[in-house]
Amino acid sequence: MIEPDSALAHGLFDAMAAASFDGIGMTRDTYGAGEQRAHDLVAGHAGMLGLEVRIDAALNLYLTLPGKERGLPAVLTGSHLDTVPRGGNYDGAAGVIAGIAILAAWAKAGMTPGRDVTVIAIRAEESVWFPVSYIGSKAALGLLPPDALDVVRFDTQKTLYRHIQELGGTPELIKAGTPGIDPAAVYAFLELHIEQGPVLIDNRRNIGIVTGICGSLRYRAATVTGRYAHSGATPRSHRRDAVVAFAQLVDALHRHWLAMEAAGHELTLTFGQVNTDSRQSDFSKVAGSVGFCIDIRSRSTDSLQQMDRQVQATVAALARQHGVIFDLGEQRRSQPALMDDALRRELARSADRLGLTHHEMPSGAGHDAAMFANRGIPAAMLFIPNANGSHNPDERMELGDFDRGARVLAGALWAIANV
Amino acid sequence: MIEPDSALAHGLFDAMAAASFDGIGMTRDTYGAGEQRAHDLVAGHAGMLGLEVRIDAALNLYLTLPGKERGLPAVLTGSHLDTVPRGGNYDGAAGVIAGIAILAAWAKAGMTPGRDVTVIAIRAEESVWFPVSYIGSKAALGLLPPDALDVVRFDTQKTLYRHIQELGGTPELIKAGTPGIDPAAVYAFLELHIEQGPVLIDNRRNIGIVTGICGSLRYRAATVTGRYAHSGATPRSHRRDAVVAFAQLVDALHRHWLAMEAAGHELTLTFGQVNTDSRQSDFSKVAGSVGFCIDIRSRSTDSLQQMDRQVQATVAALARQHGVIFDLGEQRRSQPALMDDALRRELARSADRLGLTHHEMPSGAGHDAAMFANRGIPAAMLFIPNANGSHNPDERMELGDFDRGARVLAGALWAIANV
Repeated sequence: MIEPDSALAHGLFDAMAAASFDGIGMTRDTYGAGEQRAHDLVAGHAGMLGLEVRIDAALNLYLTLPGKERGLPAVLTGSHLDTVPRGGNYDGAAGVIAGIAILAAWAKAGMTPGRDVTVIAIRAEESVWFPVSYIGSKAALGLLPPDALDVVRFDTQKTLYRHIQELGGTPELIKAGTPGIDPAAVYAFLELHIEQGPVLIDNRRNIGIVTGICGSLRYRAATVTGRYAHSGATPRSHRRDAVVAFAQLVDALHRHWLAMEAAGHELTLTFGQVNTDSRQSDFSKVAGSVGFCIDIRSRSTDSLQQMDRQVQATVAALARQHGVIFDLGEQRRSQPALMDDALRRELARSADRLGLTHHEMPSGAGHDAAMFANRGIPAAMLFIPNANGSHNPDERMELGDFDRGARVLAGALWAIANV
Repeated sequence: MIEPDSALAHGLFDAMAAASFDGIGMTRDTYGAGEQRAHDLVAGHAGMLGLEVRIDAALNLYLTLPGKERGLPAVLTGSHLDTVPRGGNYDGAAGVIAGIAILAAWAKAGMTPGRDVTVIAIRAEESVWFPVSYIGSKAALGLLPPDALDVVRFDTQKTLYRHIQELGGTPELIKAGTPGIDPAAVYAFLELHIEQGPVLIDNRRNIGIVTGICGSLRYRAATVTGRYAHSGATPRSHRRDAVVAFAQLVDALHRHWLAMEAAGHELTLTFGQVNTDSRQSDFSKVAGSVGFCIDIRSRSTDSLQQMDRQVQATVAALARQHGVIFDLGEQRRSQPALMDDALRRELARSADRLGLTHHEMPSGAGHDAAMFANRGIPAAMLFIPNANGSHNPDERMELGDFDRGARVLAGALWAIANV
């Protein structure tokens, strides 16, 4: 087995960091100068390596090592190159660079897979810049709603349409629903990505094999309204305390989460933000209003719905008990995506052959692989251990862990491409 | 019995409102133009009524109807004239105007009490302008710490010293600890004030007789620090969730409050503000930090301490359980003040004579009467029913309720002044 070109990969990481450092972390802004520099860097190297380079209307980048039978559906691997503001160097980029290091080694060794193997550098995975998720992979698969092109980037206030156009893309084709790649021409999609939680490091496993990508059920702008009152002059029985009602909601749902886990459900429940009103609240007033958000994630639609029913029931009970009014605001949902069993087994076999340990785990975070899976394309994901989470400058993947992960990916890709 | 001059009182309320309206509510800023207009209005009327007018170094105003024996310690009644920004017309002013309406009626009828009866219009009761409580009554009693004169008003950024000086006061005398009135020359202090909670209206009583003024135990800048983490990618067992730890603190202490009440304690417990970090928190992150405040009030130092021990114990247990760190910040305390039994009985007798109902109740809010009581001067308070709380433009005392309360005060003052 030919090893991926780890020297090339490490050099690309360094070059990517040099092109992205903002003084604190890495910023490769979606459809902006930062993401574009990363795409230029990757495309330039791929050309030197002799890979076929193609760019679609949404500026997704496809780098192909031709296979023996070019008419067969291709194997795709890759991830995204954009980052959140002041993010880390590896979130997304690791998956693209792993693919290039693999194809580079195969090309250098004169190895020709049975079918085309294509590395895709996907655009716009981070939804922080534009309020739309998975713009790049949706556009590649012809799934982007036409009105998504009218949203504006939070900092530039320019539309997505204009951003794509200014970088040389063809937004009118995206608007017409023309896919960047024919789904029928894709045999499988494999995405390598850093883990964004601590599971692999804590469990001391070399790689993670993702069982499914969680869907979510969210209330991003919920409120509970009670009544402002003097903290000293208002007895308990006369209060409509928004903070107490909120606290009991959190505690009750947290206990329900434990009970659901004990019953075998896999899900997460998070209240990431809570705020009293800065103008009306005071240390000497019973709080009349609290704003908060709820984020529920699970691979199972049933688990999402079961927790949501508990949210509704608890809110109704607490409203009666405390004389407060809950307004959960708009509910937003995303579909869970199951990873393909055969591809998962192929990744496990590849790890076994290399003597590496693996851990089967759901992905709580969303990934482009979910778009491919939900479009009916067999998809799988491989996680690399990573300390300190992602979306911050302290993200820390060890290059040795990356090299091991890239070898697992290489073995699986070769096997799949030669079925 | 001669009735207080209610027409004069209602006219003074109207004049006070006209002089204080800021477009939304009443603003009589502490040691500023608003409070000064109120003092000028009251002093001007008192002069026309033939009352003796005196102003001390801190600009507290004393209006005296001379008694038969001028050497005897005087009976004081009154309250403050300042307001919070955009407050109501009656918080404070009702107590001063009631006293004037009583002395005016007595003077007109040629009634001379056994000893001097003095209405005091106290300065600077609201601690929102300067970060010091009870400036006026402390200065009157020689209790203001000298360094308090160096604090600055939040909006003008000028010192208390300068504010007093610019209005014609003598801050150097206050700094030297010279009292505005000799405590030995005060026989009793009675304060009429609007209720700042809903107890009298809900219980349909004509007046409240205050049993004691609550002390407080506060943590105004507490934090709980956990660890920011991806909401989807971080399993429950790996979380250090600051929001969950905060919520369980609120719920546990709220349940302890119920248990203490069931055991006969009287106290309040309030978490008036809670905020995640606006720069670091996100709907898709486990919260790594929550800021909050705790306000505990009781007439009983023992009850305050018992709840505080529960705060400490709960915080320690939750820190272990969730792997978070609580920092409660500075603890601030104020002493409870008991109202004088004999004066309370005098108020109750006066109400009974008038056929009015009364309700014995603690004051959860702080009042100048606490300063007099803690200086060893017999003190008592009378509450007037008031809807919608205080410190807001919707404060709503009915003038009929005020008139009844002023009659109760008049009866008690006359009895006490003629002991």
